[in-house]
Amino acid sequence: MSSMPLVSSSGESFVELLKTYQQRVDIALISLLPSEEGSTTQLPAAMKYAVTNGGKRVRPVLAYATGKALNIPLARVDVAAAAVEMMHAYSLVHDDLPAMDDDDLRRGKPTCHRAFDEATAILAGDALQALAFTVLALNPDDDVSDSAKLHMVRILGEASGADGMAAGQSIDLESVGRSLTLKELENMHNHKTGALIKASVLLPAMLSPQIDSAMLNRLNDYAGAVGLCFQIVDDILDVVSDTETLGKTQGADIALNKPTYPALLGLEGARAHAQNMHENALASIHDLGSDFDELRMLSSYIVERTF
Amino acid sequence: MSSMPLVSSSGESFVELLKTYQQRVDIALISLLPSEEGSTTQLPAAMKYAVTNGGKRVRPVLAYATGKALNIPLARVDVAAAAVEMMHAYSLVHDDLPAMDDDDLRRGKPTCHRAFDEATAILAGDALQALAFTVLALNPDDDVSDSAKLHMVRILGEASGADGMAAGQSIDLESVGRSLTLKELENMHNHKTGALIKASVLLPAMLSPQIDSAMLNRLNDYAGAVGLCFQIVDDILDVVSDTETLGKTQGADIALNKPTYPALLGLEGARAHAQNMHENALASIHDLGSDFDELRMLSSYIVERTF
Repeated sequence: MSSMPLVSSSGESFVELLKTYQQRVDIALISLLPSEEGSTTQLPAAMKYAVTNGGKRVRPVLAYATGKALNIPLARVDVAAAAVEMMHAYSLVHDDLPAMDDDDLRRGKPTCHRAFDEATAILAGDALQALAFTVLALNPDDDVSDSAKLHMVRILGEASGADGMAAGQSIDLESVGRSLTLKELENMHNHKTGALIKASVLLPAMLSPQIDSAMLNRLNDYAGAVGLCFQIVDDILDVVSDTETLGKTQGADIALNKPTYPALLGLEGARAHAQNMHENALASIHDLGSDFDELRMLSSYIVERTF
Repeated sequence: MSSMPLVSSSGESFVELLKTYQQRVDIALISLLPSEEGSTTQLPAAMKYAVTNGGKRVRPVLAYATGKALNIPLARVDVAAAAVEMMHAYSLVHDDLPAMDDDDLRRGKPTCHRAFDEATAILAGDALQALAFTVLALNPDDDVSDSAKLHMVRILGEASGADGMAAGQSIDLESVGRSLTLKELENMHNHKTGALIKASVLLPAMLSPQIDSAMLNRLNDYAGAVGLCFQIVDDILDVVSDTETLGKTQGADIALNKPTYPALLGLEGARAHAQNMHENALASIHDLGSDFDELRMLSSYIVERTF
């Protein structure tokens, strides 16, 4: 199975499309964040700093591409895209804390607790999590039933809590210095990043009136494979990129003695595994029409990315 | 205006009723928390530790008493009562962290980050917040509309995020060492504890099909006054109680140079202010029937408590 060419049906390059989606979610995020004006505290500024950090917006892009695949107008996807990105941003702020990964840099900029202070960073993360749920509950989209909106809250909650992202981070912390099997490593990533990446395709899917469990399962499989692929490539880049390209300290995972795919499989083995996951992602949506091309291109982009 | 005698209409003493409600929410909480069995991490144990900490369960008691006032069966209030307590428990875990109040004891027991470690405590708080929203979204109560359930998510989100509890904690942190006016102190508490205390009466109110905005406003006023009263009494007890009775380090607020009611108003002035808030609470529900007696007794209990 070969990769999709990175050009969309409208002739737009995929990188341009990514930029469009990134800008789109940035606007949605800014409009949903609390105003800094009139605030007597640093909290709104810290929340904004955490969210507008030059990230790749993989989760919102997944949400928009899923919207495109299911013929949902992009404007209707904004709230879901913003909610998953808020949840992701909060998790990065907390992961970077001294008690967790103790990172000073995130994408070349000081981490939130370095730019502000530790207490403010903890609170900014806390408030971003609350906001992610609140915007889903306040979603003004009249074309979605309250039942579907409630389902979206539940999907986000299950993806981020003790059965999802928080569990993954906990497994990660308790794995430092231990050797994991491939299965254990995959279990960690399925929780730590996979659950929210799956939520990024499932939330917009709930906006579709025709959605059925067969399609939800296929999207879930797609996202599971893409999520693991993303993580494997992340581990590879941690080994092969220099600090400048990566925007974080190169070799940070190895320095922390964290289990990684290259450590388990070797660099070439890890690359083959990433390619395998990419092919699984394509296979899970293989017989679906050109509406799903953006999801295909996104998977190609993720396996081929160099930063 | 005199205090209610602390005996319920059924002749039960209010302290016994409190115990009933405390036990009730404990059962609900345990049933909703993730299982420790089968978990490879400390996360479920830390969440349980944070929640089963011998607290007074003021917020769940408020929720049940509101349910009683509005003729809602207690079983239907369980989810709301558990959700507000999870949110409260998470906030305590994060407030106690070294970067925040740096407390070693909470109700006479090691704080969560002392019993486990800092990273696990941060994650346990994060996962408890996610769970609070998730249980509201999963609420199996068929007698409540999805619209009302969604409204409950929104109420909890707004109470706990950047316009509510997190803002209050941020104001608190930035107030250390500064002198606040009474108005500023009240603004801090209205956010830090008042917002979630209001949510504790508004969530069960959403379970009532006859609820209207007039009743919501009265309950909101009641809870606002009770919340401030609780906080004033807390500040007073921090000055007058010994460490053993209080279960936390006596004079901790003063040691941290935190603004308090006794510092602003003197001990007697603070006592009078608490009594005033209690009377405001009673006034906001004064012409309502005996169904509201538990809420009245709860206000009496809060202003008279000695621990």
